[in-house]
Amino acid sequence: MSRADPFSRIRVVLSHPVHPGNIGAAARALKTMGLSRLYLVRPKCFPDPEARWLSANALDVLERAVVCDSLDEALAGTTLSIAVSARSRVMAHAPLDARGAAAEAVARARTEEVAFVFGNEIAGLANDEVMKCNRLASIPSHPDYTSLNLAAAVQVITYECRMAVLGPPPAAPAAELAAHEEVENFFEHLERNLYESGFLHPKYPRRLMERLRRLFSRASLEKEEVSILRGILAAWEEPHATDSRKGSKPDAK
Amino acid sequence: MSRADPFSRIRVVLSHPVHPGNIGAAARALKTMGLSRLYLVRPKCFPDPEARWLSANALDVLERAVVCDSLDEALAGTTLSIAVSARSRVMAHAPLDARGAAAEAVARARTEEVAFVFGNEIAGLANDEVMKCNRLASIPSHPDYTSLNLAAAVQVITYECRMAVLGPPPAAPAAELAAHEEVENFFEHLERNLYESGFLHPKYPRRLMERLRRLFSRASLEKEEVSILRGILAAWEEPHATDSRKGSKPDAK
Repeated sequence: MSRADPFSRIRVVLSHPVHPGNIGAAARALKTMGLSRLYLVRPKCFPDPEARWLSANALDVLERAVVCDSLDEALAGTTLSIAVSARSRVMAHAPLDARGAAAEAVARARTEEVAFVFGNEIAGLANDEVMKCNRLASIPSHPDYTSLNLAAAVQVITYECRMAVLGPPPAAPAAELAAHEEVENFFEHLERNLYESGFLHPKYPRRLMERLRRLFSRASLEKEEVSILRGILAAWEEPHATDSRKGSKPDAK
Repeated sequence: MSRADPFSRIRVVLSHPVHPGNIGAAARALKTMGLSRLYLVRPKCFPDPEARWLSANALDVLERAVVCDSLDEALAGTTLSIAVSARSRVMAHAPLDARGAAAEAVARARTEEVAFVFGNEIAGLANDEVMKCNRLASIPSHPDYTSLNLAAAVQVITYECRMAVLGPPPAAPAAELAAHEEVENFFEHLERNLYESGFLHPKYPRRLMERLRRLFSRASLEKEEVSILRGILAAWEEPHATDSRKGSKPDAK
């Protein structure tokens, strides 16, 4: 393990898990690979004896699991969040494979908070959950049968994280990155702004915001960049003392 | 999949498995990665409804599983057999990691019969079982807690086999990227727009454009994204037929 201990900054988020056995098996998977931070978004049954049973001796991971009401809560403070999904998705982020995702996560986790997000056993991740993440990763599987068990998927991803840690450490980024909630606030501001400008039609809103999320996620926004972007939005919303805009911009209040 | 179809020559052998659920989960793991040949040496309970249940839809793999009386029988015809074990063993073969083992197995399986051998859930592989194999492989895990679930170990090994068959990931991004001049025109448009909005003072450009260039360069803008961004700028510049700015935000989403 590196001195920078990236594993202390990687959380594994299970969104709406149904079977408590899978929560236990996921805790065990984390522990075998040296990870320990499990987050559960609205688990159906937790705590539960089956989760304890299937965790084998990873009870410490299970007992420290953080139960959250929403994915936003589980991602608070992260600057890199990676949705793990078998499905390919139109308009989503360009997908990484498990190995590439683990390499990026481990590199980033030397200084930043990072999350892997797994959907539930039946439906996987919802599109809006994927869009809240900065990256999409999928585990290569046979195209005719992509149905990895939830805990098995957690095992593969955490295994790749361990392999990435064991490998040569890549360089860390320098600037301070924006946290999940700061980026979400920016997207909200942007969306409001685009409605107000008339660019975004309430009738056809979805795909455009997805496109913009994908673009900015790819860039991994820095804190200061989010401030600049929000300043730009605010400047357009405020009436200007000396309006130099062409045409008839109403500086109405 | 290569024309030589190495997966048709790789068998996964479970020696003396105790829990039928693990047999089912192992069958599922094989199938997700495109493998299909499961061998069982003296399973405690097989066939068994729990194995069927935990195989999810990998019943075909389960139903074609070959039940053997001995490890020798399960290894008959192979020229490469790889024991998978968490324990380090004195006097055993020099161990491979899972990735190296999978690379060798896949390369060999283009022409030869190959087996991965997994021990049972409680005791792992016996020394004489390891010595019957040509190689020893272990899955890197945390030294304090090496206890991978049997099906999870099968999942990692079969995943590495799939990765070995797939080779290095294709680099090509799908979308068409914007050309230099398109990006430059966007930056010019953006700069003009920021002056007009009052955000950028001609006296104090503050390296702002440099910051914005850095941000968008990191994202490697696509052609379509440049169109969207320029559309947003244009929407702010145009007077709107029905100005909905400030106060009258359409509430539909």
